[in-house]
Formats: sequence, C-alpha cells, structure tokens
Amino acid sequence: MLFQVQMDVRIPHDLPETKAEALKKAERARAQELQEQGIWRHLWRHAGRYANTSIFDVASSQDLHDLLSTLPLFPFMDISVTPLCRHPSSIRDDDR
Amino acid sequence: MLFQVQMDVRIPHDLPETKAEALKKAERARAQELQEQGIWRHLWRHAGRYANTSIFDVASSQDLHDLLSTLPLFPFMDISVTPLCRHPSSIRDDDR
Amino acid sequence: MLFQVQMDVRIPHDLPETKAEALKKAERARAQELQEQGIWRHLWRHAGRYANTSIFDVASSQDLHDLLSTLPLFPFMDISVTPLCRHPSSIRDDDR
Amino acid sequence: MLFQVQMDVRIPHDLPETKAEALKKAERARAQELQEQGIWRHLWRHAGRYANTSIFDVASSQDLHDLLSTLPLFPFMDISVTPLCRHPSSIRDDDR
Amino acid sequence: MLFQVQMDVRIPHDLPETKAEALKKAERARAQELQEQGIWRHLWRHAGRYANTSIFDVASSQDLHDLLSTLPLFPFMDISVTPLCRHPSSIRDDDR
Amino acid sequence: MLFQVQMDVRIPHDLPETKAEALKKAERARAQELQEQGIWRHLWRHAGRYANTSIFDVASSQDLHDLLSTLPLFPFMDISVTPLCRHPSSIRDDDR
Amino acid sequence: MLFQVQMDVRIPHDLPETKAEALKKAERARAQELQEQGIWRHLWRHAGRYANTSIFDVASSQDLHDLLSTLPLFPFMDISVTPLCRHPSSIRDDDR
Amino acid sequence: MLFQVQMDVRIPHDLPETKAEALKKAERARAQELQEQGIWRHLWRHAGRYANTSIFDVASSQDLHDLLSTLPLFPFMDISVTPLCRHPSSIRDDDR
Amino acid sequence: MLFQVQMDVRIPHDLPETKAEALKKAERARAQELQEQGIWRHLWRHAGRYANTSIFDVASSQDLHDLLSTLPLFPFMDISVTPLCRHPSSIRDDDR
Amino acid sequence: MLFQVQMDVRIPHDLPETKAEALKKAERARAQELQEQGIWRHLWRHAGRYANTSIFDVASSQDLHDLLSTLPLFPFMDISVTPLCRHPSSIRDDDR
Repeated sequence: MLFQVQMDVRIPHDLPETKAEALKKAERARAQELQEQGIWRHLWRHAGRYANTSIFDVASSQDLHDLLSTLPLFPFMDISVTPLCRHPSSIRDDDR
Repeated sequence: MLFQVQMDVRIPHDLPETKAEALKKAERARAQELQEQGIWRHLWRHAGRYANTSIFDVASSQDLHDLLSTLPLFPFMDISVTPLCRHPSSIRDDDR
Repeated sequence: MLFQVQMDVRIPHDLPETKAEALKKAERARAQELQEQGIWRHLWRHAGRYANTSIFDVASSQDLHDLLSTLPLFPFMDISVTPLCRHPSSIRDDDR
Repeated sequence: MLFQVQMDVRIPHDLPETKAEALKKAERARAQELQEQGIWRHLWRHAGRYANTSIFDVASSQDLHDLLSTLPLFPFMDISVTPLCRHPSSIRDDDR
Repeated sequence: MLFQVQMDVRIPHDLPETKAEALKKAERARAQELQEQGIWRHLWRHAGRYANTSIFDVASSQDLHDLLSTLPLFPFMDISVTPLCRHPSSIRDDDR
Repeated sequence: MLFQVQMDVRIPHDLPETKAEALKKAERARAQELQEQGIWRHLWRHAGRYANTSIFDVASSQDLHDLLSTLPLFPFMDISVTPLCRHPSSIRDDDR
Repeated sequence: MLFQVQMDVRIPHDLPETKAEALKKAERARAQELQEQGIWRHLWRHAGRYANTSIFDVASSQDLHDLLSTLPLFPFMDISVTPLCRHPSSIRDDDR
Repeated sequence: MLFQVQMDVRIPHDLPETKAEALKKAERARAQELQEQGIWRHLWRHAGRYANTSIFDVASSQDLHDLLSTLPLFPFMDISVTPLCRHPSSIRDDDR
Repeated sequence: MLFQVQMDVRIPHDLPETKAEALKKAERARAQELQEQGIWRHLWRHAGRYANTSIFDVASSQDLHDLLSTLPLFPFMDISVTPLCRHPSSIRDDDR
Repeated sequence: MLFQVQMDVRIPHDLPETKAEALKKAERARAQELQEQGIWRHLWRHAGRYANTSIFDVASSQDLHDLLSTLPLFPFMDISVTPLCRHPSSIRDDDR
C-alpha cells in the first residue's frame, strides 16, 4: 500500500553542530536501508528547499508510523501523509 | 527533469453530463498516451478525493506547461507544481 | 485498518429539491449498509454544521477510495482523510 | 456527551530529556486511567505524526476542560475541540 | 452548557428576493423565540459584516445541533462552534 | 460599546516558574477588578484550550486598548478584536 | 472614533450590467456624501485591485455598522474592520 | 519604479465562448502594446497554471492601477501586487 | 505616493529589558521625526494589539524601503505593504 | 530555464552579530558572482521587507537546488520556487 509523505526539515540553529551531523548521517543510513528493502520506494528533493516528497510501500498505516516515527530526524520534521491508491487511468501495474 | 504535480478536479454541477463524460474520456486517453511515452511517469489517486499526485519527466518547464495546459480537464483543475531533483540519500538511479 | 474521514457537505442551492432529497436518501441507505457490515465503524455529526467525522475500517486505501468515491453525495462533499494507527497508550484492543 | 479532540504535541528540543520522559510517562498513566473509566473513549495515533485523535465522553464542556488542562503534556500541545452529536444515519446506539 | 457560535450569512445573489425575505423573517421570529426561552442567551452583530456572535445555553451538543440545523437561514450560513466553560477568574455566577 | 476579544495565551516554557505564577496572579486580580467595574462584562474559557472569549463594555477603542495593553499577560497573548453592535433580532436591551 | 475598513468588491459576472452600473453610481454618491460629512475620512484604492482601504470617524460601532450595511454594494463586498486608536508616538492631534 | 504583479485568471465556465475569446484576444493585444512601450517589462507564464508573474515599470502606483484595472481580463483575475526596489547586492543597473 | 504599511511588533521575551527599552525610545524618536517631515503621514494603533497601520507619503518604493528597513524595531516587526492610489470616488485632494 | 524564487530571510536575534555579518557578506559575494555568470538573472528587494524576488536561469531543477542550498543564508531563509515558462503574449525573446 502506497503513502505519499512530505517531510519539511527544520533543524534549530542552536542544536550543536556535531549532534546535527550525527542525526543527518544516521538519517541517511536509515533512508538507504529502507530503500534497499523496497519500502521507501521513491525519494525526491524539493528543488531549493530542505524538504522531500517520498513514496512508501508498506503493509499498513501502522507500519508507516513505526518507520517514520523512528527516523533520526523525526523530532525536527513537519510531516504530512496522503494515502494513495490506483488511478483508473494508470497503465503501470505497480502504481497500485 | 521531474516535476510533482497535484491536480484537484472540480467539475461544476451544472456542466452538462454528456460534456463532462466526453472530457473525462478524452482526459483518460491523453493520460494513457503520455504514460506510454514515459512522460507521465507516475499517476496516483488520493484515496477518498477527486485528486491525484503525478510525476512528470519532461525536458523543461515549457514542455510541462504545454502538456498540462492542453489536458481536456485543465479548465476544471486546481494545479500545483513542485520541481523535484535528486535526493542525496537516494539509491535509485532514475529518481534524478 | 482505520481511517478518519471528515466530510463537509455543500449542496448547491440551485440543485433541484427532488434530486437533493433522492441523493440524501440514497446516501443514508448506503451509510447504514456500510455500518452494518462493520466497515463504517463510527459516524458522528459535528454539532451545528453539515459535516461529520467518520471512522472507516477497511483492508486498504484502495477499498477506502472505492467506498467514498461511490457515495451518492460524493460530488458535493469536501473530504479529508487521516490514516490512523494504534496509539501506544491505548488500552482498547480494537482501536488498532 | 462526545467531543472530538485533536492533540498535536510539540516538545521543545531544549527541554531536558529527563523532564520530557517524566512528562510522557505521566501522560501515559493518566491517559490509561481515563480510558479505564470510559471517559477517554477512543485514542488513535495519526500515522507518521506526533498527534492523535481522541473521543471523550464527558458530562459537560467543563469536565472536558478540567481533564484536558491537567494533562501532563498540556503545555506542549496544540488542541482543537469539535463537539459531536448523533448522526441521523447512525445505527450505533452509543455513538450519541 | 454554553456554546459560542459564529454565523456568517451568505445569501446567493440569484436567490429570489421574495424567498430571501421570507427566510430572513422566519429566522428573526425563530431567533426571538429562542431568546425568550433563555436558550439563545446573547446575539451580537459584527459591526460592518453580515455576521453575528451568539451564545447558546443548551443541555447538550445534540440540542445545539437540533436548534442550529433547523434555523431558516442554516443552508446559507458558515457556522463555527466553540464550547465554552467557566473561567477560573470569572466573578459572574451564570457565566458557567 | 461592546467588543469581543479572543485571547490565546502562550507562555514560553523557559520563562521562570515564579515569574509566570506572579503574572498569572496579577492577571487574575486585574480581570476581577475590571469585572467588578462592569467593564469586562463576560469572561469564558474555551474548553480544552488556554484561551478565552471576553466581552468588554468600554467608552471607546482607546479605552479598550488601554485596558488590554496593560494586562500583565499582554506580552504573551495573541489577541483578536471584533467590534460588536446591536443585532436587529435581539430582544435583550443591554446587548447593544 | 476611528475604524479602518477594507472592502474587496466582487460583482458576479452574471449580474445584469445595468444593475451593476446603477449600484456603482449609487455607491459613489453615498461615498461622497459621507466624505463631505467628515464621516468617511479617507478613501484609498489598492493599486491594481478592486479594493479599498477606508478610515471612518464615527461615534460608535453601531454607527459604523449602520453606514456600511446600507452601502449599495454591501451585498457584494468582503469587509474587514479594525478598530484604531491613538498611537503613543503620533504627533498629529486628530489621529485619535 | 518596479512592481511585481501576479495574475491568476479564472474565467467562469458559463461565460459564452465567443466573449471569452474576444477578451483573451484583446488582452493579448494590450499586453503586447504595453510591452512595446517598455511598461510591462517582463511577462512569464507559471508552468502548468493559468497564471503569470509580471514586472511593470511605471511612474507611480496610480499609473499601475490605471493600467491593470483596464485590462480586458481584469474582472476575471485575482491580482496581487508587490512593490520592488533595488537590492543592495544587485549588479544590474536597471533592476532599480 | 502613498503606501499603507501594517507593522506587527514581536519582541522576544529573552531580549534584555534595557535593549528593548532603548530600541522603543529610538523608534519613537524616528517615528516623530518622519511625521514632522510629512513622510509618515498617519500612524494609528490597532486597539488591543501591539500593531499599527501607517500611511507613508514617499517619492518611490525605494524611499519607502530605506525608511522602513532602518527603523530601530525593524528586525522585530512583521511588515506588510499595500501601494495605494487615488480612489475615483474620493473628494479629498491630497488622498492621491 | 527560468525559475522565480522568493526568499524571506529570518535571522534569529540570538545569532552572534559577527556570525550574522560574516554570513551576509558571504551571501552578497556569492549573489554577485552568480549574477555575473548570468545565472541569477534578476534580484529585487521587496520594499519594506527582508525578502527578495529572484529569477534564476539554470539548466535544470538540480542546478537550481545546488545553487540555492549552498547559499550562506540558506539555513535562515524560507524559500518558495515557481517554475516559469514563456508566456504566449510575450514579445521578449529571452523571457523564455
């Protein structure tokens, strides 16, 4: 099941630099792990903004929450979630 | 080059039924044609709403405009456009 | 899987009265049918407004869309969808 | 009488970790106590967000306020309240 | 129990004048009847706008909905409802 | 002359507790003094929120400003002001 | 007493031209009459928009409402009202 | 003096086709005339939307208003105006 | 040329008191200087809020920016600017 | 390819003055370098606000992101991006 997730990252300027870097590094590792597992299906940067649009392929809303809420940068992200489904005009089998 | 496009369709209730049906049929044919050409890369319905999220792969903003503004339902859609680019944590080659 | 759905109904004042009444009657019948099947789990009116909060229990976002988009009043409703999951502090087994 | 309450939790990043943990633990205990008493009727997490939708069954707006304003995390929550009532199409006796 | 209700009236310009006048006259009669019963406790016009702030004293959210949804101008009003309760600094006994 | 005033209180979490308590105590004393003088006519808490709706009866906008801007919690409140006047359907003499 | 009033005019495109012209002519006559009386103190057009900012000098909110609600274009205007008072840094006697 | 103007065009679906076409043709002629005079300095389409960003070079706000309010499509446009001035980091002489 | 400027002042609670007082005193002196020069034509307080509406009479947008951006409280103000021009129904010569 | 970019700068008041000055100086140098290369085509200040409208001429959304995200003030800017294309009524060859 697919969910569109928009993440806007807002790291406070008074967060220590080393802590911020560690969080970003961990976030990147986790993002790549989930992509390799086919769960984080797409990941695009919004041009000019510290934000992304992601497509997740999960078994349930519960799985989506468990993944998102344990992302290292979760406390510093504004997240919006849109449940997707197959479009009747789609010709692509796995855009379900 | 990728663009995320959200389309919210609002067909006025006093548009004649036959005209509405003709527009929807033409929209569907055009959407499938553009998908087959690899231009309209993804097309997902928002669950519960007459709206979709689409990913277009075009050579320029101009091409994007020419495609969107000639869609049969264009006069009845609220459209928002977000230019996308490659995310540094992406592992997928064609999510550029 | 649970989804919270808010529906705001806006019936145009120039829709013929008989058509409006037929749609409302069909909507009611369908709503009760889905409640009896355990799919439309909760249905509450917002006090003072032509709007409701509903909780749907469906197998997927696709099922949710198929149900909502075929409601008789669908063309006259503004709908927002929030995917829900189990709260770690919940003590109620079926609030998953 | 039923009220729909949405709580968005925003804990400042410079709140000491131990204080934050103590508040969350106390919040959980209180939430479960109120659920056991049948007052906090439903409690759902919004998938992907530090937010919940709750349904409270209380005798009055005053009781609702006394409960919400004494929650341990109250100072760190954005709260919106929607009074609910029975929907004429509801078939469920206790969704009053 | 007190509720603050804001009503913004929007009568379509193509509603027949006689129908609009009949609705306004009926609305006025009903508003005065409810005031005389002590239910519609306060009724103030917003200076310069076709809108009002009202305070209702009702036994429940259900009663509030039954009153508001049967007002003659209900189909032409945007309504927002705020449940009120006693303020700890209030010195007025019936502002409960 | 009546004004509807909504006050949303936002006390920063890093304001020293003793200062916050002193401000709240002073606010309460001032609110009660103005109520006793018949100036702060109504004061209601919004159920579930650190906010209130107030009705002030003052001789002018200037008097309103002088009262509000010297409230102890003024620096920590978002305030919106709506000038009220008599509603043609009101039957209550002092709701002018 | 001064009030800042913003008026956004929205005349429906299907209002008969002669009716629209008659309303505009009457609006102009009334605006000039009120300016001559010193009540409509300032009247500025927003560059590029069918909107204005006005300053009214009236004895009360009631007087303001009686003036605005009887303007010929009132049914076609979105109006917002801001009560003004003397600024402590003002050096102009009649900007009270 | 430069002004940034955003125009969102919304032509009602029930405006007769011939009238709409005549307005668009007149709009185009006027836009080109003003460009040739160096007044309408830039004119860009928003990709995917019936909207544009324009830069006007005029002697005053009054001139801007006189130009915009007489555009053939003015009654069908939502317009927002931003006064611009020279940026201290600009190296381009005529971006004043 | 006239511009309407709204300034909402938000002084952070952790700005040292002496610095805040110095800024306010300097702001006041500058505001009065500009009023005496006929540039800051009107200055009104919004009743109940730390905000003002001002009318500036300047030769250009550039002059307006140079004045506003050097106000002592500029870093702590949210500012919105509306270019004004003569209203066709105005009877006042200097409301140009 | 042209993009319209709006940048609203918000420098926290507790950022050390020397750091803020260094960032602004670096930002200015980078802005001028990009202007000289013809990439940052236009740069205008919004009169009265710490904000600008910029037009970038880049080969792709990716190039735009790489430029914007490495601006020295990027962490302190709210940025919105609008892809532009040629307007059919434009007479200017390089406003493509």
